[in-house]
Amino acid sequence: MNVPPDGKPSHWTPKAFLFDAYGTLFDVHAVVHCDGVNLVGDLPGLSQLWRRKQIESTWLRALMERYEDFWHITEAALRSALRELSIPASDGQIDRLMAAYLCPPAFADAKSLLGLLHIAAQGPLAILSNGSPPMLEAAVRGNGLEWYFTEIISVDRVKTYKPSPRVYALGPQLLNLPVEDILFVTSNSWDAAGAKAFGYPVCWCNRSGIEMEDWGFAPDFTVRGLGRIAEKLA
Amino acid sequence: MNVPPDGKPSHWTPKAFLFDAYGTLFDVHAVVHCDGVNLVGDLPGLSQLWRRKQIESTWLRALMERYEDFWHITEAALRSALRELSIPASDGQIDRLMAAYLCPPAFADAKSLLGLLHIAAQGPLAILSNGSPPMLEAAVRGNGLEWYFTEIISVDRVKTYKPSPRVYALGPQLLNLPVEDILFVTSNSWDAAGAKAFGYPVCWCNRSGIEMEDWGFAPDFTVRGLGRIAEKLA
Repeated sequence: MNVPPDGKPSHWTPKAFLFDAYGTLFDVHAVVHCDGVNLVGDLPGLSQLWRRKQIESTWLRALMERYEDFWHITEAALRSALRELSIPASDGQIDRLMAAYLCPPAFADAKSLLGLLHIAAQGPLAILSNGSPPMLEAAVRGNGLEWYFTEIISVDRVKTYKPSPRVYALGPQLLNLPVEDILFVTSNSWDAAGAKAFGYPVCWCNRSGIEMEDWGFAPDFTVRGLGRIAEKLA
Repeated sequence: MNVPPDGKPSHWTPKAFLFDAYGTLFDVHAVVHCDGVNLVGDLPGLSQLWRRKQIESTWLRALMERYEDFWHITEAALRSALRELSIPASDGQIDRLMAAYLCPPAFADAKSLLGLLHIAAQGPLAILSNGSPPMLEAAVRGNGLEWYFTEIISVDRVKTYKPSPRVYALGPQLLNLPVEDILFVTSNSWDAAGAKAFGYPVCWCNRSGIEMEDWGFAPDFTVRGLGRIAEKLA
């Protein structure tokens, strides 16, 4: 594999791959369309607002040093987004959405890439995510991906959230590799910046084609889908 | 003065008032309408996006432990918002907007309240803000408010941002009072939550009538404008 992280020779090969989960491997925006929930309203708008409130809560809780796990934060964000958009939802419908959040579908390009990397034995594959351990286990198992990962690392170990360096430090620590040997792959621009600030070589999977914000730390390379990483395998 | 913070008797009187600056004392959304800039486009939308990007940057920089001062963050957020909204702006126009940000107009109710509190000698008045020291000095002096404040406290002293408890700790430390004697006044909901989490009695000035998010820490009381605080003075 041939990826050109900043300042590294073009023949650099990662010794391990560390993936973000939600938005990168798993399609969280599919959740509002899950079977049996039957909400009436702007579902794509709900999904965007739910996600924004969820992520903002993680940032604020982390900054306040008042950690609450991702499951609790996700449900509070859902209830707030429903209220803000005046979308009526029963407790049963909210339970159904939360159950669907336990197993958002894996992106097709994620499944392909993980399969290829596994076969190519490019080194350990792992996840580093805001999700709580039960949420991550449910999503990985529910999508049949449990064989691929040597580590599924939750922020819950350090009781804070990305982009805190205390979270990113878990990768080298648990994979027992120097940070510069681990390719960090994420679709979240702020996660890409945080991982880069910590010292990882970073691939930003910019699925929606947005512009990178100027947070002082840019990813080493950008792809529009995870398939582009697979194509680089030779 | 008679304000009912949670768990305190109704005759509780603050020994000091600690104000947030931007959005609370100073109207940052007036900046895009400043004389001589002549931008063409959705100026209220630009102002909202500028503010959101500015605040997100402070949260992310603080979480990444990569502090950059508020002046730099504010200009980067402005440039990003202009690009995202495809509003053309020359370097001269951007310089003009940044110059206007140095002295956003004080809200009329802020000037009235500060005057009343000063006359009533209710205890020291102070500011605790994300702004850099030169920004805060320019805004306070430019609005003729410099006589009111015994302390103008910038996050720059601790090189992080709200809602970090390291920021809120500056209030009791510099005012030399217990946190429970200082009324913290802010129009930013997440700042109200952060100050409450730290231990202040908190008044949220909810100027736009939004709902408080469920971050686990609610303000002790809410007003729609700072005038409502003045009314409670007897």
